[in-house]
Amino acid sequence: MNNALLALAWSLVLSCGTAAAGGERARDLGVPFEGVPGLLNAITDVAGVTVGHVTLIEDLANGRKVRTGVTAILPRGRESLNTPAYGAWFALNGNGEMTGTAYLDEMGQLAGPVMLTNTHNVGVVHQEVIAWRVRAGPADASGYWWSSPVVAETWDGDLNDINGFHVRPEHVDRALDTARSGPVTEGNVGGGTGMICHEFKCGIGTASRRVTVADSTYAVGVLVQANYGVRETLRIAGVPVGQELPVKSEGPPAKGDQGSIVIVVATDAPLLPHQLKRVARRASLGLGRMGSFAGNGSGDLFLAFSTANAGALGGAPLVQSVSLGNDSLDGLFNATVQATEEAIVNAMVAARDMQGTEGHSVQALPHDALVRLLKQYGRYTPPH
Amino acid sequence: MNNALLALAWSLVLSCGTAAAGGERARDLGVPFEGVPGLLNAITDVAGVTVGHVTLIEDLANGRKVRTGVTAILPRGRESLNTPAYGAWFALNGNGEMTGTAYLDEMGQLAGPVMLTNTHNVGVVHQEVIAWRVRAGPADASGYWWSSPVVAETWDGDLNDINGFHVRPEHVDRALDTARSGPVTEGNVGGGTGMICHEFKCGIGTASRRVTVADSTYAVGVLVQANYGVRETLRIAGVPVGQELPVKSEGPPAKGDQGSIVIVVATDAPLLPHQLKRVARRASLGLGRMGSFAGNGSGDLFLAFSTANAGALGGAPLVQSVSLGNDSLDGLFNATVQATEEAIVNAMVAARDMQGTEGHSVQALPHDALVRLLKQYGRYTPPH
Amino acid sequence: MNNALLALAWSLVLSCGTAAAGGERARDLGVPFEGVPGLLNAITDVAGVTVGHVTLIEDLANGRKVRTGVTAILPRGRESLNTPAYGAWFALNGNGEMTGTAYLDEMGQLAGPVMLTNTHNVGVVHQEVIAWRVRAGPADASGYWWSSPVVAETWDGDLNDINGFHVRPEHVDRALDTARSGPVTEGNVGGGTGMICHEFKCGIGTASRRVTVADSTYAVGVLVQANYGVRETLRIAGVPVGQELPVKSEGPPAKGDQGSIVIVVATDAPLLPHQLKRVARRASLGLGRMGSFAGNGSGDLFLAFSTANAGALGGAPLVQSVSLGNDSLDGLFNATVQATEEAIVNAMVAARDMQGTEGHSVQALPHDALVRLLKQYGRYTPPH
Amino acid sequence: MNNALLALAWSLVLSCGTAAAGGERARDLGVPFEGVPGLLNAITDVAGVTVGHVTLIEDLANGRKVRTGVTAILPRGRESLNTPAYGAWFALNGNGEMTGTAYLDEMGQLAGPVMLTNTHNVGVVHQEVIAWRVRAGPADASGYWWSSPVVAETWDGDLNDINGFHVRPEHVDRALDTARSGPVTEGNVGGGTGMICHEFKCGIGTASRRVTVADSTYAVGVLVQANYGVRETLRIAGVPVGQELPVKSEGPPAKGDQGSIVIVVATDAPLLPHQLKRVARRASLGLGRMGSFAGNGSGDLFLAFSTANAGALGGAPLVQSVSLGNDSLDGLFNATVQATEEAIVNAMVAARDMQGTEGHSVQALPHDALVRLLKQYGRYTPPH
Repeated sequence: MNNALLALAWSLVLSCGTAAAGGERARDLGVPFEGVPGLLNAITDVAGVTVGHVTLIEDLANGRKVRTGVTAILPRGRESLNTPAYGAWFALNGNGEMTGTAYLDEMGQLAGPVMLTNTHNVGVVHQEVIAWRVRAGPADASGYWWSSPVVAETWDGDLNDINGFHVRPEHVDRALDTARSGPVTEGNVGGGTGMICHEFKCGIGTASRRVTVADSTYAVGVLVQANYGVRETLRIAGVPVGQELPVKSEGPPAKGDQGSIVIVVATDAPLLPHQLKRVARRASLGLGRMGSFAGNGSGDLFLAFSTANAGALGGAPLVQSVSLGNDSLDGLFNATVQATEEAIVNAMVAARDMQGTEGHSVQALPHDALVRLLKQYGRYTPPH
Repeated sequence: MNNALLALAWSLVLSCGTAAAGGERARDLGVPFEGVPGLLNAITDVAGVTVGHVTLIEDLANGRKVRTGVTAILPRGRESLNTPAYGAWFALNGNGEMTGTAYLDEMGQLAGPVMLTNTHNVGVVHQEVIAWRVRAGPADASGYWWSSPVVAETWDGDLNDINGFHVRPEHVDRALDTARSGPVTEGNVGGGTGMICHEFKCGIGTASRRVTVADSTYAVGVLVQANYGVRETLRIAGVPVGQELPVKSEGPPAKGDQGSIVIVVATDAPLLPHQLKRVARRASLGLGRMGSFAGNGSGDLFLAFSTANAGALGGAPLVQSVSLGNDSLDGLFNATVQATEEAIVNAMVAARDMQGTEGHSVQALPHDALVRLLKQYGRYTPPH
Repeated sequence: MNNALLALAWSLVLSCGTAAAGGERARDLGVPFEGVPGLLNAITDVAGVTVGHVTLIEDLANGRKVRTGVTAILPRGRESLNTPAYGAWFALNGNGEMTGTAYLDEMGQLAGPVMLTNTHNVGVVHQEVIAWRVRAGPADASGYWWSSPVVAETWDGDLNDINGFHVRPEHVDRALDTARSGPVTEGNVGGGTGMICHEFKCGIGTASRRVTVADSTYAVGVLVQANYGVRETLRIAGVPVGQELPVKSEGPPAKGDQGSIVIVVATDAPLLPHQLKRVARRASLGLGRMGSFAGNGSGDLFLAFSTANAGALGGAPLVQSVSLGNDSLDGLFNATVQATEEAIVNAMVAARDMQGTEGHSVQALPHDALVRLLKQYGRYTPPH
Repeated sequence: MNNALLALAWSLVLSCGTAAAGGERARDLGVPFEGVPGLLNAITDVAGVTVGHVTLIEDLANGRKVRTGVTAILPRGRESLNTPAYGAWFALNGNGEMTGTAYLDEMGQLAGPVMLTNTHNVGVVHQEVIAWRVRAGPADASGYWWSSPVVAETWDGDLNDINGFHVRPEHVDRALDTARSGPVTEGNVGGGTGMICHEFKCGIGTASRRVTVADSTYAVGVLVQANYGVRETLRIAGVPVGQELPVKSEGPPAKGDQGSIVIVVATDAPLLPHQLKRVARRASLGLGRMGSFAGNGSGDLFLAFSTANAGALGGAPLVQSVSLGNDSLDGLFNATVQATEEAIVNAMVAARDMQGTEGHSVQALPHDALVRLLKQYGRYTPPH
């Protein structure tokens, strides 16, 4: 089985000590989570899913600083060019942009990749995804190049020179072309480079769960570009971290919850579009565990797709789809909540302090303080 | 094939002159329509669908008049007790009630019948559908009796003593228990008994289309409970009937578009829930052809279901569904629009003048005038 | 000011020791919450809102047990008969029933009360609310009696003889007619009588917050009918209570998350319908804090209304509405999350062990164990 | 009054014979419509609305042909930079792109212009609208530049070298900077340059209606970028034009309804966001009158905004809005349907035959045939 081989291959890689693209993760610090993660504890535990980051960090001559990037998630790797995936989306807070959502609702499918970037570069990413598709080969069976790409964003203007529009077409192509399976780099990378959560430095995070339904085991993987939240409501594993580590006055001026979070849920469980919408909505509950109240400025937009049923999505006039019964979804819903929670904490743990544009700087969540608080509140769980 | 036998049986019945439950229909008057109707030109052309009407017409001792009823549509006949159907709904104008819609959206399925009645009797119908299900047998596979029945309504208070709440549990049971396949009575019957369209007497109407997709032929059947619209915008087959036959002053006082229309679309084409939502939305376009502007008071609520994929809806944890590709739906969309248009005109043509409560009376669309106008505008199409 | 007088009156009542309708509440046990509650810490802190419960507890001769009821929430007290309130709803999980939602979406207003009951008595409540309105007086300005009442439900069939349909019209009337402001009884009362949360006895709970926006202070009140969740994911104030108090084998057989929760959010803050939809969605995040994953069977349906702008909702052709700017809503969103969380814990704390039908019994959350766990996890906050 | 002066000014311009930017319109050919148009019978009859077109027609050295463009609609003219408008959207068929819709739903407002272009240039328009806003001045009151611009598209790849991505930032700026009130050019212009309707050449069309509600008169203006539909279902004023003028074999190969239509509805009537969503949905009914069945490939996306309540949208924490009562909206709904119908016919009448890329050519609807058919079907209405 591809899955088993993949697992073996990565277990060899991991046993060499390269541990999830090198960074520390929430579990390494003793944060307790529920459920059983996949081998990589990453969205790429869903076989076929590939992720590519392009990270742009540069100090410009004019004193401005580039702290941004683009992340590509390909549901079926390179085959995403030709074969859509059943998909759906949900807006917990629509004060943000995710393109391609009317198409998702209408067609029940995600055609092509999911792209994550900063708010002001949605356009260049949108157009370049189409150009990349056009260059990649002929039109699809309907005589068209698919052309409603999904591009989602969060706002990195505190740290990044966002009005410099620094993401360019070649960065988009590189994110798409370098996307790969395996461990996913987290923190200050890709679309998450300049992002901030709960007034700590944040960015990209990922996690996964394994779920057994009717004797089959499925993977649920989550990747977040996290940029939301105020300090005081932050909870990690139920510990009131935000209250214990209040914002100090010398940080950037607080403007309320002006961020956003994009949550992408992948699964190899066979789900139909209306079931994937159910999954997408559940991401809200993982975000709720962190203490979010989905502030006005926080565009909280979620997307879910299934890599199953490739045969049903090739454009034939009559197709067969496999799906789990609605009564068999609780495990997947729970896994979505769990992996969302962990992916966000992973994003916070992996992020590093950053000096940004206009003299702004943001500190990452101090690992020692987190460990101390976990112990103080009886929640520390030694990593094994 | 069941379908072929059914067709043969009904062709025998029809050749005996009983013509569609006895009433005249729009085609009989020379109204032109597009597309190819099924044998009965009724929702029951979708094999398995059964329809039951209970019509309540009574002049009470207190001078009030009962002009109401209840109509039951069972997607799979009696088997609807045990096997849901993929389904979806759409509100062109939500100023009305259709219960069970949150369940439809979430689960992608219609569990049980679709019930049509007057606005003030939604409750009794809702509870009695549950009671009927409880009496009919044990709980379903999940340990439950399904309990989010679909009950939709339009307001018949102009002609019916609506505040007398005259629909009772036994009427609900009778509509369910007498539902049958075959020709469907139209006009002043069932839930449509006291309804009014474009200020003409109206009620229940139905129509169907046959559509060939990838070498298979499918049926699309529509049933409407029509109670919407003002006179002046009425168009029939493009002819400005409303402008030619303006409301005379002695009618009931016009209150704008205070009615509503419920449109139920059935098909045996294999469609997934998100595709049935697409179908439900298309009913709007058939209504548009009639001249509706979906006035404020008009609750225009549509529902679509597919009788295919019974095997996928029995509660098993892993199921297979067949579906048409999105690129193969144009014929079904067009058929939905065509059959909606014809079902509404059929409701108007089948309805008869009615004396109602509080001295109100409403005239039906005069057939001779309609024929005259069709000829005047070059649209008369002799029935064959 | 009415508000000030009301506060004074209740402070006198409360100082007499009647403490929130007599029962213990989560704060009394040392559960920590965020934000500032209103005087009653109840939905009735929103001036004008009244609540009525009818609780039906009876052991029938046939051995069956009635454990159900009905709860009425009137946004403007008796004046709810004549004046709607801006309102909106949201389905986190639509696997349940809340009637009147198409109307809410279309019209942006809640006409009449919000009724809570068991799943199988939605119908009788629906019809009787209309009958009660008809008896109460003449039609509204549009010539109609409003007739899309909001009735929501959760399933109490584990403890209640639900197929006996024990809620009757007189119970509905009594809940409506006895609704009052002031402290709200919680736990095994009204629609919540037979409900179960996280496999502990549950029912009705309420809480409120005070929020200052631009120099004005507003109330946000929440009332829940809580019947959702599995034990193992239960978190209270971040403490993993479910893992510490696992389900013992002698309880009713677990069937996954088969419950549901209805959350009603009231506020006197001036919000427009689209803003109230934002508020309704935020209730998800409070539910998320409790550990819910919105299991398949859990119909999680939320509704929000504002008592402001009464003058805009009287049916005049041109009206003026006051509203907070979107940029000023963070406090209300946060309050919604906080009050939702507390209302659920209040429902669990107020509930009492119950012997139900078919020999089923469910224990309430043991207060001493909760206090012990709060202390163990460093979260105990002495009540003041 | 500004409005009166504007009317006077334009009546002078029009009396000089420049007639609606020079082209023939549907009324000039005797097509009958319902309702009373505004002075210009254009979206610009809504005071403050400005429209700019950039039309790109070029035959490239490589044999490819550029037949595309971009159209900008500014709700408040240049003041759209600073003051949003209440707005809403609706997808009759989501198989297309309209960016900014999650923001519209969440915030209830349209911040900035509505841009129309071809499918593959959505990205460049999206990014350049943000860049244009950044250059235009400081951030808004919340500390942000609005950044969820609305860009909608239809597919012009039959006639335009769409994979050449010919719309560039300077075209976007020009459309925005040259937008003006007054007559609006129709047909092969702006975003509509290469569009096709019902297999006739099509493009941009516009129309308006005047509606009196409670002694005040309001304007409803519609602008469409129309690119949808098959020939055989085309109806104009109820006349079966599509059946009378079937597609001849030498045209481009029919691929079903692969087009799309974007419909923008503007009004100065004071409507709240949920009411504007009602208006947007009504555009469906105007489209229905034309014979559309919203084919699978046709992204039918509608947007409505109101120019009233500018004072409520400036970012203040507490604001007042005026609105019409729901019971007073019928005239506006009817006007939306009427103006949508006329705008589409205007787009067809104004369009001219076009030679496009890859040897494709499309004929416009022949005016003489249309006049002949109107007369044949008794619908010809001499222009006055």
